[in-house]
Amino acid sequence: MPSRRELANAIRALSMDAVQKAKSGHPGAPMGMADIAEVLWNNFLTHNPNNPHWVNRDRFVLSNGHGSMLLYSLLHLSGYDVSMEDLKQFRQLHSKTPGHPEYGYAPGIETTTGPLGQGLSNAVGMALAEKVLAGQFNRDGHEIVDHYTYVFLGDGCLMEGISHESCALAGTWGLGKLVAFYDDNGISIDGDVAGWFTDDTPKRFDAYGWHVIRDVDGHDSEAVRRATEEARSVIDKPTLICCKTLIGYGAPNLAGSGDCHGAPLGEDEIFATRDKLGWSYPPFEIPEEIYEGWDGTEKGKAAEAAWDKKLVAYQAAYPELAAEFKRRLQHKLPENWEATVAEAIQAAAVKAEKIATRKASQNALEAYAPVLPELLGGSADLTGSNLTHWSGSKVISKTAPEGNYIHYGVREFGMSAIMNGIALHGGFIPYGGTFLMFSEYARNAVRMAALMGVQSIFVYTHDSIGLGEDGPTHQAVEQAATLRYIPRMSVWRPCDAVESLVAWRAAIERQEGPTSLLFSRQGLPPQKRTPEQIENIRRGGYILRDTEDKPDVIMVATGSEVALAMEAAETLGSKGIQARVVSMPCTDVFDAQSKAYREAILPSEVRARVAVEAGITDYWRKYVGLEGKVSGIDTFGESAPAEDVYRHFGLTAENLAKIAEDMVS
Amino acid sequence: MPSRRELANAIRALSMDAVQKAKSGHPGAPMGMADIAEVLWNNFLTHNPNNPHWVNRDRFVLSNGHGSMLLYSLLHLSGYDVSMEDLKQFRQLHSKTPGHPEYGYAPGIETTTGPLGQGLSNAVGMALAEKVLAGQFNRDGHEIVDHYTYVFLGDGCLMEGISHESCALAGTWGLGKLVAFYDDNGISIDGDVAGWFTDDTPKRFDAYGWHVIRDVDGHDSEAVRRATEEARSVIDKPTLICCKTLIGYGAPNLAGSGDCHGAPLGEDEIFATRDKLGWSYPPFEIPEEIYEGWDGTEKGKAAEAAWDKKLVAYQAAYPELAAEFKRRLQHKLPENWEATVAEAIQAAAVKAEKIATRKASQNALEAYAPVLPELLGGSADLTGSNLTHWSGSKVISKTAPEGNYIHYGVREFGMSAIMNGIALHGGFIPYGGTFLMFSEYARNAVRMAALMGVQSIFVYTHDSIGLGEDGPTHQAVEQAATLRYIPRMSVWRPCDAVESLVAWRAAIERQEGPTSLLFSRQGLPPQKRTPEQIENIRRGGYILRDTEDKPDVIMVATGSEVALAMEAAETLGSKGIQARVVSMPCTDVFDAQSKAYREAILPSEVRARVAVEAGITDYWRKYVGLEGKVSGIDTFGESAPAEDVYRHFGLTAENLAKIAEDMVS
Repeated sequence: MPSRRELANAIRALSMDAVQKAKSGHPGAPMGMADIAEVLWNNFLTHNPNNPHWVNRDRFVLSNGHGSMLLYSLLHLSGYDVSMEDLKQFRQLHSKTPGHPEYGYAPGIETTTGPLGQGLSNAVGMALAEKVLAGQFNRDGHEIVDHYTYVFLGDGCLMEGISHESCALAGTWGLGKLVAFYDDNGISIDGDVAGWFTDDTPKRFDAYGWHVIRDVDGHDSEAVRRATEEARSVIDKPTLICCKTLIGYGAPNLAGSGDCHGAPLGEDEIFATRDKLGWSYPPFEIPEEIYEGWDGTEKGKAAEAAWDKKLVAYQAAYPELAAEFKRRLQHKLPENWEATVAEAIQAAAVKAEKIATRKASQNALEAYAPVLPELLGGSADLTGSNLTHWSGSKVISKTAPEGNYIHYGVREFGMSAIMNGIALHGGFIPYGGTFLMFSEYARNAVRMAALMGVQSIFVYTHDSIGLGEDGPTHQAVEQAATLRYIPRMSVWRPCDAVESLVAWRAAIERQEGPTSLLFSRQGLPPQKRTPEQIENIRRGGYILRDTEDKPDVIMVATGSEVALAMEAAETLGSKGIQARVVSMPCTDVFDAQSKAYREAILPSEVRARVAVEAGITDYWRKYVGLEGKVSGIDTFGESAPAEDVYRHFGLTAENLAKIAEDMVS
Repeated sequence: MPSRRELANAIRALSMDAVQKAKSGHPGAPMGMADIAEVLWNNFLTHNPNNPHWVNRDRFVLSNGHGSMLLYSLLHLSGYDVSMEDLKQFRQLHSKTPGHPEYGYAPGIETTTGPLGQGLSNAVGMALAEKVLAGQFNRDGHEIVDHYTYVFLGDGCLMEGISHESCALAGTWGLGKLVAFYDDNGISIDGDVAGWFTDDTPKRFDAYGWHVIRDVDGHDSEAVRRATEEARSVIDKPTLICCKTLIGYGAPNLAGSGDCHGAPLGEDEIFATRDKLGWSYPPFEIPEEIYEGWDGTEKGKAAEAAWDKKLVAYQAAYPELAAEFKRRLQHKLPENWEATVAEAIQAAAVKAEKIATRKASQNALEAYAPVLPELLGGSADLTGSNLTHWSGSKVISKTAPEGNYIHYGVREFGMSAIMNGIALHGGFIPYGGTFLMFSEYARNAVRMAALMGVQSIFVYTHDSIGLGEDGPTHQAVEQAATLRYIPRMSVWRPCDAVESLVAWRAAIERQEGPTSLLFSRQGLPPQKRTPEQIENIRRGGYILRDTEDKPDVIMVATGSEVALAMEAAETLGSKGIQARVVSMPCTDVFDAQSKAYREAILPSEVRARVAVEAGITDYWRKYVGLEGKVSGIDTFGESAPAEDVYRHFGLTAENLAKIAEDMVS
């Protein structure tokens, strides 16, 4: 039977060899954390390599994602479908083993990590999801949701501000099943961290209400085991285990130095490391007894089987709950979903209220949320402004985890990464609100939702200069456009209550990626539509007002500017100019329509086109071309009542009509 | 002589009345912090209301910027050019008193605040700038740089992650002249913070190495005075004074509740507040003795005069240093600047090296930095990757503050906001590096630099899929385009060493706003240019390769894709197709050229246009219109060696030539 150290050395060998072969990568962290990983994976982690999707598995997140070879080694050794050939393809095109762990590329990757601090925050979201799902579904004697979330992290994660946001919340929420291993190796890319990272980290986490285990020797397996046991036994607080490690452990000349952080060790040093570690096997060769020491397949099969039995008992005792549990974990919408949507849209069309779309968004929640208990809402301390709560909202707290609403505090980045973690965990559709401007604080987490293709719904209210008095720091100008530029992000900016309901519907039905919903602060008039027009909203862009003959001019508008375009079209009509108005609440969905549909909406032959949106104008060149005109804002906003700001920027129906008139005359 | 409370009540009255008149704003914080502000401004703050630009003034930052009426009241009462009429225009178009304090709108506003946590971080930058400038210029007995930086902040600032980044650095740097007043009122927008903000904040700041003064009654002027004295006496650590306050102090029914945070109190409550405070004056009326109690003009004049004498003595003792001090604080470039630039560009053109533009950037620093001691560089823990250091770089530390290079650690947002604070302070041109992708972590600070129009230089390397193996989490796709959409931001993406030198020159000469410099990881070949072409680089876009006759097709390229376009043009030429290549390193500068110049580069009549950039394609519609083609990337990147990734995305000279050929045939 190999020793723990020998088992850990398999990780070290695979990591240094794969990085060397790829001529690129980060051997230092995998070699430094190998002993910790060995203890966690072989003694504690409950998982099933043959079913990476088992819902009650422990989650493992490598927040210091540059150490990806650690994770790939663990997956390979413990029996996941990650072959030696896959390891040899480290960092090569179309491999399962890209430079950083990418969600969806290899089985067992719980989240994409690399951007520092976000994996840790995803883990907080996963642990919260576990706690809330348990609160909602577990019954006495039936703990069908009951797993840990483990996370590895480095100095970089702890320097990033997002670690403050998400770890403070983890403390507030008392996430006792979250166990974090801090790789305290004293080295970051610029060298010895003493020059720029002098935090007393244990004290800091103590201040967050975490249980902190200090001064654990990360190369002493027994010490790591004891610490992990202690962490698991503390059930009312998350635990941070501070592990002193040597980066690049085993490399005789480079260990402990920044030089082994992000570059291959080199053939000579690898040779010397093999010698020092007593690892006598050639590259990419693992002896059978080492595989046996790592194999997690039987244990995993047994663990899942035991849980299956619990689920059967649960089903027998609570058949309806069990069915609902299954539905939610399979991401199936309820049977009455279509009918609920149709009814809400019909009602809003009839009611024809002038309301702010943020209020329309709240109405959408009132209509949809009762049939969607998987909706897990929240706001970054702007609940009453974002209107992200509804009458059935129940706040989640440390002692009442069964609710459906989260006060995230003023923590946009943390909120967004936690939402991603919740979505990755399963069982929920998370949504969270802030002002559109402050999507910028969360920008990279929003992008990560898109990169991973997870269903986080970002509710961004106060979406333009229309927010008025708070001024340029709060008035979105370029944010709608920049969100639209994120690949795989869907962005809706509806113009009234009916479009808002359709936007929410799209966000809820879109499981393959995130959706950003942009809503106005100010009231917007309802638009009249035929049933066919209502149906076409789903297509992202549609004709809201048409002309009898070929249009002289086409106006394309979104959100709060649709009403301006409609008014301008009337003015133009009175002057004998035929103006079509295209409402374009979602450009990405419109762009994905058939060419025939797009051509029907924006006929190539009509080049007299005007786009209007209270934001950056260049974005709209893709629809109006070089000959068209765009009415928008290319500077920062101004502080004043909304109507004054609109007038100041010339965003009026009158100006719009004039621009169109000048084009065609 | 009015009492301190009466003086403070003037702030309360002005704040509640101005918010009421504007029907919008935040009375709670000004009313809660009025007593603290009174002590600080009347007993400690050294400033000259008649010269808000006095370089040695104490800096005062209101990080909880929504409490702007506190600041406007202070400026008005102490004698700045902010009239009662200005206060009545609170939150109105073109007033000096917008919803949040906007840099440049009223005298005495040191920075724009509102986006929480950033004012605090700007203050850290100001305090660092003071310490470094003092380190560089002060001599024994000649402390010409010697001032405090005071900052007010609220719960929201402390919840934001950026507070972690910048306050950890403030502790590391030992910024003893930074004094922060925490308005601990227990209320944020969603209500009592106990549900979402449970940090032990004193312990947290203790962990950062701050001096923390706990449990100060923010309404006990004597206690605040004592705490401030203590804070000023601790010279090796920044101080956090934790002040317990009542939000909306004085409002009999709304004080202590979230209802007075962000909405007018209402006429009845204002009436009752006047009564409770014993403030018998009508709205916008301040009795003479209150003005006398606040007037800071004489004291300020005397303070500046005393400093002027010190400066005269300094000039006598150190004439050259004094001249340099003056030059730097006046933002004047050195006399040999033009010659230095010309020589460097000439040398690079002759040398014609194939190098990565990040290396070219370092070469630019080697060429320019020796004559620009105001350059204060740094990196967010990527020094060796960003190549932001040069041979004259000297690292700044707590005990060696006279250097010119900062290890910011893995703190992109903190770095960027600190850079803005350094720029606002004066005496420096800050630059700081990270990977282009991680501009997203700092996004809103980058925007704030543009909004304020301060000269922060953001160095973003690894600017595309060209970074290769690190994969999609690190490969910029939409980031160049989204940076370009920030109003007043200048973005350069040079294609070789010569363009890199011109880009750096533009960044250094551009004082009216920030510049983002985008550099490649991978080596890029040098382009040949005539002197006229070299001169035209400064215009943002220019003809790098022209045709004898009217071009059949125009290719527009930036950065690493310029070489592809050049190669494609050769291929096209061999097929008899005349292709012009426009190198467009800076679209915003090109867009600002005369119409005649732009028309000469991109003649309207040539609509066969192809743009190529390893990023989002829609951005380029503004130059190629609906008929043109764009070769770029509209998905996320992939992990693989750079050449493989380029091929995978079809970004090759061969494909480019084919696209152009198809267009014209």
